[in-house]
Amino acid sequence: MPADSSPGYPPELSPEEERYLVTNVKDWSIAHGLAVRPAPSFVESSQDPAGVLATTAPVTLFPSLFPHTCFEQGLAIQKAYNELYSAIARDEEWLQEIVKELIEIDDFVGKLWQTHLAVKEAGYVQDLSLGLFRSDYMVHSDSSGSGTSLGLKQVEFNTIASSFGGLSSQVSNLHKYLLTVDAYPPSATAIIKPDSLRQSNSTSSLAQGLAVAHKAYGQSRTGRTLCVLFVVQEPERNVFDQRHLEYALLEESGVCSFRLPFHQTLLHTKLESDRTLLYSPPNSPSYLYEVTTVYFRAGYSPDDYPKEEDWRARLHLEKSRAIKCPSILTHLAGCKKVQQVLATPHSPHLKRFLSDDGVASHVLATFAPIYPLDDSEAGKEAIRLATHPETANRYVLKPQREGGGNNTYRKAIPQFLKDLPQTHWPAYILMEMIEPPPLRNIIFRNGEVQRGGVICELGVYGVCLWRNGSGKNAPGEVLHNWEAGYLLRTKGDQSEEGGVAAGFGAVDSCCLVDI
Amino acid sequence: MPADSSPGYPPELSPEEERYLVTNVKDWSIAHGLAVRPAPSFVESSQDPAGVLATTAPVTLFPSLFPHTCFEQGLAIQKAYNELYSAIARDEEWLQEIVKELIEIDDFVGKLWQTHLAVKEAGYVQDLSLGLFRSDYMVHSDSSGSGTSLGLKQVEFNTIASSFGGLSSQVSNLHKYLLTVDAYPPSATAIIKPDSLRQSNSTSSLAQGLAVAHKAYGQSRTGRTLCVLFVVQEPERNVFDQRHLEYALLEESGVCSFRLPFHQTLLHTKLESDRTLLYSPPNSPSYLYEVTTVYFRAGYSPDDYPKEEDWRARLHLEKSRAIKCPSILTHLAGCKKVQQVLATPHSPHLKRFLSDDGVASHVLATFAPIYPLDDSEAGKEAIRLATHPETANRYVLKPQREGGGNNTYRKAIPQFLKDLPQTHWPAYILMEMIEPPPLRNIIFRNGEVQRGGVICELGVYGVCLWRNGSGKNAPGEVLHNWEAGYLLRTKGDQSEEGGVAAGFGAVDSCCLVDI
Repeated sequence: MPADSSPGYPPELSPEEERYLVTNVKDWSIAHGLAVRPAPSFVESSQDPAGVLATTAPVTLFPSLFPHTCFEQGLAIQKAYNELYSAIARDEEWLQEIVKELIEIDDFVGKLWQTHLAVKEAGYVQDLSLGLFRSDYMVHSDSSGSGTSLGLKQVEFNTIASSFGGLSSQVSNLHKYLLTVDAYPPSATAIIKPDSLRQSNSTSSLAQGLAVAHKAYGQSRTGRTLCVLFVVQEPERNVFDQRHLEYALLEESGVCSFRLPFHQTLLHTKLESDRTLLYSPPNSPSYLYEVTTVYFRAGYSPDDYPKEEDWRARLHLEKSRAIKCPSILTHLAGCKKVQQVLATPHSPHLKRFLSDDGVASHVLATFAPIYPLDDSEAGKEAIRLATHPETANRYVLKPQREGGGNNTYRKAIPQFLKDLPQTHWPAYILMEMIEPPPLRNIIFRNGEVQRGGVICELGVYGVCLWRNGSGKNAPGEVLHNWEAGYLLRTKGDQSEEGGVAAGFGAVDSCCLVDI
Repeated sequence: MPADSSPGYPPELSPEEERYLVTNVKDWSIAHGLAVRPAPSFVESSQDPAGVLATTAPVTLFPSLFPHTCFEQGLAIQKAYNELYSAIARDEEWLQEIVKELIEIDDFVGKLWQTHLAVKEAGYVQDLSLGLFRSDYMVHSDSSGSGTSLGLKQVEFNTIASSFGGLSSQVSNLHKYLLTVDAYPPSATAIIKPDSLRQSNSTSSLAQGLAVAHKAYGQSRTGRTLCVLFVVQEPERNVFDQRHLEYALLEESGVCSFRLPFHQTLLHTKLESDRTLLYSPPNSPSYLYEVTTVYFRAGYSPDDYPKEEDWRARLHLEKSRAIKCPSILTHLAGCKKVQQVLATPHSPHLKRFLSDDGVASHVLATFAPIYPLDDSEAGKEAIRLATHPETANRYVLKPQREGGGNNTYRKAIPQFLKDLPQTHWPAYILMEMIEPPPLRNIIFRNGEVQRGGVICELGVYGVCLWRNGSGKNAPGEVLHNWEAGYLLRTKGDQSEEGGVAAGFGAVDSCCLVDI
């Protein structure tokens, strides 16, 4: 595909071309909040104790080439994925079966499950649940049949703290702007046409998701002002990504939101006797707001729970009447184990949740084979593959947990497993490496221009609001379900991790090409 | 007024209140491009050679209280001021009389006039002229009559490079946002009501001014793409202020613009034989654009002309067929001397330009008495006042030139004049100090919070496009004339200069109060 069809993309830039492009990127990005707080390695906190400095978010100078059909495939299937994960989150019985073998070996999953059980014992008082999902894919170049075919293969499905929706809209606007002001050389504009650029409406669309939850919460039970609560990490370098959602929520829907550092949860929130969640802002502790929706942009990683108090905080929020985005069960539905169970060849599970065979087959087509590392038949086969360097070379080993940075790749897998007690192996899943076609781009980060081979990951956002049921005969229902824009994340092909904020990648947009 | 009517404004802030307010300001400002590049004293260029860092522009945390009637007075009179300065710029004969006594003593004014004469000799080929003006005022508390009355008094009238229109819109949005998210303590919101905040539409309205000039230029004469040229200083820390106008021009009117560092003018522009101005962008030198409008955000200060080549550049642009914003004559109309001649008590000049007596009297009411330092009767009186410390204490001495930073205040005036050859005195004007009522606010700059007494300066933007005439019987005509939003600039009352970019003040917005 593009590697062959557009070998000169992006073109070589003269010093003047690069300077003009970079100057436009630097200015436009700050003028439009396509920004992050600088890393401590760039600006030490002693130099800027108040934290007022900002810098351009890592971005690509050009939109990356992306197969048109794959892009449309990802967008078209998002509603089915929303439905699938909503159904999983509503099926406690099934989820328990899946999760139970992890509980003993993954303390984090165990703690999440215990939290769910504690809430269940007290009784759930909120039957609405919100998902702001992101399904991540890579283009897979399959040359096993006759000729090479391209299709999307799912990397992971994020059910909590799906990030970069606030910046993604801005990057697609940036690339469109650069095209408009002739910042791209003529050899590039032969490929980048206005029609081939795809705007991502993720900021507005995700904020709209929070707004429908807020509205579905209903009237205030306390007569107090209603608000949405963004539960966040602190400090947060990627704060503008989150702020854009807050601002869109306020401007487009008139809904007020507040940022609550997760570790301050118990300090600034309390439950009424009917478990209505009240928030007292630190600047005005006597004024209480009633929280309609808790939006977790923290709490997805064990690192967010250094103290026992943090688990009490999660339980406290989970027990509340506020709509959670996501609930504990939805959070657990995002375990890699769930993805693995669905994607293990010949798995019977998908049809449990997607009754429409056509829809199910479209979803199935986006699964890359994933194996458990347990004593099932598939697991035994996987262990055989993973423990030998040659066969392991086609795989990636991933922990069940959310958030990048913990994967083990290819030939490193056998030694990694050797160092791990075999009883812990089921905490990992083995996934066939997706083989993306070679691409090139230029990443701009911290003022540096890095050109080279890149790997792109397409994330498709989804919004889903549903009512939980009360068992098999009352399985609940989906109230809102829509595709909510996209993210393209691009990293140098020397790096095997793709988190932009972690310094390994850049936010990008799609220039669609027909293969 | 406010000093008495709102003694507790802005209120004292608890540490938590201040932290919440500052956090919201820091994040909102960067997310919305209310930003500047950091000063070298904050971030050395060696640390950020690519210049990617940005910081919140100096802003006030609260909107300053401003008398409602004075605000309306300033906005209402702007069209008359546009008409006045357009008429002055069209009256070469009158302007020559005014300027001629400066030519010998102010080299910069002399050079500007010579440039005009050189263009005149070659023949002006563009009879349209654009002004993006800003009339600056302070509230003057007059206790000479019975009781105290408040009115606006003009500080200066800017005919070139009127800045901060791009940031002013954002500051008024910021203060409105802070009110909406309850970042102001209850004692402040008793005063700051949504109705009392005034949004400034300066970004959009000034960009619209450039758009009407662009359109009035007419069809391309060369078949090339038309564009607007922003002639700028380099480096420019206040770049986002300018960029917001560029982006609004593109988004709202579809007009493309480019930034040309003034000192590169001769390198990247050329004149066709019919004096059509062509621009070749450095990134794509073989592609030529036809320039409809030259917008000067540089060239207003002698510092912009270190080499003789820079004067050739100004002449080159001035001779071109592009519409200039402003033309040399409009630039010269902004001399303090013109302001002085109009505002000297009993001056006959105003009625020459404003035929409507009612309009003229409204304009006249905004003049603070200004005296020449020459051998006229008013000049002799002024010299007597300025050379004695006691009488000088009520005055400010200003050079004829645009741009702050060169004023001499009160008791410092006699010694300043003593050190200056008396032949140079006419290069200055003596202006009665405007006595603003005491106010307080909090300025946020470089992460520091500075609380104290402040002085506010209201700037009202005006857009005027006119056709120059060809003499007394064909005086030209005004084609477009509108008020274009406002700027409130606030500085600590210990400082006597008010340029925000120079580090002496902050961008603010108006909270209107009835006296």
